[in-house]
Amino acid sequence: FSSTTPIKATLFPGDGIGPEIAESVKQVFTAADVVIDWDEQFVGTEVDPRTNSFLTWENLQSVLKNKVGLKGPMATPIGKGHRSLNLTLRKELNLYANVRPCYSLPGYKTRYDDVDLITIRENTEGEYSGLEHQVVKGVVESLKIITRKASMRVAEYAFLYAKTHGRKKVSAIHKANIMQKTDGLFLQCCDEVAKKYPEIYYEKVVIDNCCMMLVKNPALFDVLVMPNLYGDIISDLCAGLVGGLGLTPSMNIGEDGIALAEAVHGSAPDIAGKNLANPTALLLSGVMMLRHLKLNKQAEQIHSAIINTIAEGKYRTADLGGTSTTTDFTKAICDHL
Amino acid sequence: FSSTTPIKATLFPGDGIGPEIAESVKQVFTAADVVIDWDEQFVGTEVDPRTNSFLTWENLQSVLKNKVGLKGPMATPIGKGHRSLNLTLRKELNLYANVRPCYSLPGYKTRYDDVDLITIRENTEGEYSGLEHQVVKGVVESLKIITRKASMRVAEYAFLYAKTHGRKKVSAIHKANIMQKTDGLFLQCCDEVAKKYPEIYYEKVVIDNCCMMLVKNPALFDVLVMPNLYGDIISDLCAGLVGGLGLTPSMNIGEDGIALAEAVHGSAPDIAGKNLANPTALLLSGVMMLRHLKLNKQAEQIHSAIINTIAEGKYRTADLGGTSTTTDFTKAICDHL
Ligand SMILES: CC(C)[C@H](C(=O)O)[C@@H](O)C(=O)O
Ligand SMILES: CC(C)[C@H](C(=O)O)[C@@H](O)C(=O)O
Repeated sequence: FSSTTPIKATLFPGDGIGPEIAESVKQVFTAADVVIDWDEQFVGTEVDPRTNSFLTWENLQSVLKNKVGLKGPMATPIGKGHRSLNLTLRKELNLYANVRPCYSLPGYKTRYDDVDLITIRENTEGEYSGLEHQVVKGVVESLKIITRKASMRVAEYAFLYAKTHGRKKVSAIHKANIMQKTDGLFLQCCDEVAKKYPEIYYEKVVIDNCCMMLVKNPALFDVLVMPNLYGDIISDLCAGLVGGLGLTPSMNIGEDGIALAEAVHGSAPDIAGKNLANPTALLLSGVMMLRHLKLNKQAEQIHSAIINTIAEGKYRTADLGGTSTTTDFTKAICDHL
Repeated sequence: FSSTTPIKATLFPGDGIGPEIAESVKQVFTAADVVIDWDEQFVGTEVDPRTNSFLTWENLQSVLKNKVGLKGPMATPIGKGHRSLNLTLRKELNLYANVRPCYSLPGYKTRYDDVDLITIRENTEGEYSGLEHQVVKGVVESLKIITRKASMRVAEYAFLYAKTHGRKKVSAIHKANIMQKTDGLFLQCCDEVAKKYPEIYYEKVVIDNCCMMLVKNPALFDVLVMPNLYGDIISDLCAGLVGGLGLTPSMNIGEDGIALAEAVHGSAPDIAGKNLANPTALLLSGVMMLRHLKLNKQAEQIHSAIINTIAEGKYRTADLGGTSTTTDFTKAICDHL
């Protein structure tokens, strides 16, 4: 790809603050001479019987065809029987690995310096099976499913990621002391893959201990790979170390090179439409998308512009203690380019 | 009770550093004129068929009879089919609530000041059901069980605890957006109990968000109540905020007023027998036991002596950056009494 050949990519602006922060991404990309032919997709207003979700068949086909996309926050309509839109996308598109980098943003102070963590989350099964039932009144059970197939592919992805990104260590996070069979299978797969990467230090850490060590000393960790729910929990914990989900990007990886970058914060309906939202998480997710497209030069330029704007501190949105609007903050980033 | 009538209590010194830190508790209690008639219990060396565990029938009967006990770390013998000793105790004794306070120790600096959190963990079911099986090769499932009975009693305990300890808020932690039936039932029980405590602020927080908020601003929380695995994770995270499991006490609550206080850190076989262990977690667990026995004066005296010894900083064990032995640290606490 060259930056002047338009690349087709799906864009889900999403709900609430989604459209505003998506607009910010478009402007910043344009300012950096990244020409994307955005295929904008909007979630339907009623359930599409082909997806059993408000996500339409066309929504899914767009990602499958373009193989790359960017997604804002989506609010799942409230009411019985509506599957989460975020999860439906992950499941229907078979987005098996969820990569969530968390790193300290220079100039934005938290209690932690130099955090640099990559959470790689299995994204399709585990506690998210959706299989639950009432056994008798007052006794309910849910099924956690772990398969060799899903565990192998996320483990493969994690070690390959570590290798290609110059990372030194992969920690497999589990609770196999309690769930010996399910988490045990997950670990077995990690063990197996680890053998193929002797240059990468490999360890197994029980999730409770991992959380304790993360808040005490995050520098103990590097790349972390784990089943779905632990990934959900640990990635939010890690985001908290550096300031929260408003500042951290993510990308979902599927078969056949599909990648859907995603801001995982909420749709913040209370501030929607008020030009107050912080677009950083979606912008950094966009940077991940550009890196995936091998547009590394532009990715790094945009990344620096975001980081420098935040570090200078003159233009910051309210969530970071500033008074800037979304558009002012976006303009400041564009001015850095 | 008066402090001079001996009270009978079960003591499990436990494994590894267990005997050393249990000795420290005995000395400190004696120095504070707390006369306990310790019923010392040792785990068996082979499986007792009546318990299907290395825990003997006598071990369990001792707690059931005395109704109060203190427990050091227990290492579960490695090998197939051995149930965790810690879990067997909780399950066989029906210890349904696990209370884990985490508070900043004055004088022991971490990244967080003024942490003051109480995790109340359902202790008998959830992801700890032990029900797992392979469906077909490469596909394994585990069952999470949530019952109305167990959820109600832990919710009742949490709100009663909040009320009797002057706490203002109870947060129920869940992932009911994914596990609508299981975590949904848990929340329903919390909702129901909350109605009986209008003076206590009640909220529901999704576990991932809870972890993010805890590391950003632990002061947002007060008492937290949750299913088993979330309690395991969140209590370790909270412990990390104030320095780790070596500094935090816990107590297991059962029916009929049974209470088993417990240091939840490991048995640290590497330093066992070397007079290097930090007895703080077991000492503070002992303080919880005394409070449970309504020996409040002695409990507060011992508590102050521990806190002051750590705050002064002259006698600290290696895990806290000092060079004191277990016995020196213990003596320093006794000297404060
Ligand atoms: C919105 C919710 C269903 C989702 C999840 O649990 O995966 C979110 O927390 C996330 O991490 O993307
Ligand atoms: C040792 C382990 C089985 C135990 C648990 O998972 O409950 C421990 O982590 C705890 O928190 O007491």
